[in-house]
Amino acid sequence: MRLLEERIRTSGRVKEGGILKVDSFLNHQMDITLFEQMADEFWRLYGSDGVTKILTIEASGIGIAVLVGQKFKCPVIFAKKTKTKNIDGAVYTSKVESFTHGQVYDIIVSKDFLHASDRVLIIDDFLANGAALSGLAELVSAAGATLVGAGIAIEKAFQPGGEQLRARGIRIESLARIKSMGPDGAIEFC
Amino acid sequence: MRLLEERIRTSGRVKEGGILKVDSFLNHQMDITLFEQMADEFWRLYGSDGVTKILTIEASGIGIAVLVGQKFKCPVIFAKKTKTKNIDGAVYTSKVESFTHGQVYDIIVSKDFLHASDRVLIIDDFLANGAALSGLAELVSAAGATLVGAGIAIEKAFQPGGEQLRARGIRIESLARIKSMGPDGAIEFC
Repeated sequence: MRLLEERIRTSGRVKEGGILKVDSFLNHQMDITLFEQMADEFWRLYGSDGVTKILTIEASGIGIAVLVGQKFKCPVIFAKKTKTKNIDGAVYTSKVESFTHGQVYDIIVSKDFLHASDRVLIIDDFLANGAALSGLAELVSAAGATLVGAGIAIEKAFQPGGEQLRARGIRIESLARIKSMGPDGAIEFC
Repeated sequence: MRLLEERIRTSGRVKEGGILKVDSFLNHQMDITLFEQMADEFWRLYGSDGVTKILTIEASGIGIAVLVGQKFKCPVIFAKKTKTKNIDGAVYTSKVESFTHGQVYDIIVSKDFLHASDRVLIIDDFLANGAALSGLAELVSAAGATLVGAGIAIEKAFQPGGEQLRARGIRIESLARIKSMGPDGAIEFC
């Protein structure tokens, strides 16, 4: 998606440790007009696939997922990273290792909201080593639901997640695929 | 807002410890159609107040805030609860004690995204003891920005947050104000 690539080029910043900082428009301050255009693109890609639920993970996936849910006219679920007092009863759970935070955490979704009849589209802001997406796919599988695919804003294609998950048969559509990020801040797209 | 009250009555559940569980439509699974109607209501209440930024806090405020930002055609910022690798440089910070999680954490917003010229509408899903809203208001104040007011989905009016913050001169509009929650699960609205 040309528009997102341009925005990454103009407003993204490459930081030490392979971190791409896009917090001016994607995951701290959110540009809602851009998100609407991203949701339009996900609709173009997945609109005919009978999606019944959008699934994302807190926190930075929620903004995009909500506008995708608006487009698909279906509920949006966000997986939670810790077990809070507000979640009780039966949950689906899987483990995720965070690239950004350098820790392992459980993600959970209440069994009340994912069913075998659901056709699920996973939405997230980033795909890098694929841990979050893999964990979310496990939740869908545990529910016996159908994973239609994943819609990702930015894929770091130089990290192995996308390739590994596509090899497992998961359809992944990333709106911007980064081939390389140079130490000088230069960003090359696939 | 009658529609939200009805939804709380039919789909909310009162749990031990004064917890209202609304995760089937508000803060785990999100009913986007309901959120759109809530955003319409916030627009009716604050649409003529020159809002330039929507501010919320991760994670469960983000969904509503994004649809409010869509209505107001302005960026949405979510305050973060921990300092991640992705946030560097100067931030505004304040402390919040979580009612749900029973712990104190820092919330931060990058100084890049809140300015003295901003007119800020705070959006959140719950108002109870007012800790999150108070912390967010501090961030707005630290930026020298104008706090237009707060838009809350559900206020537990039997807890002191709303009264205390209104006494400090903050305009708060809550779409559903709960007067009491009985041990039998009965919910009474103001």
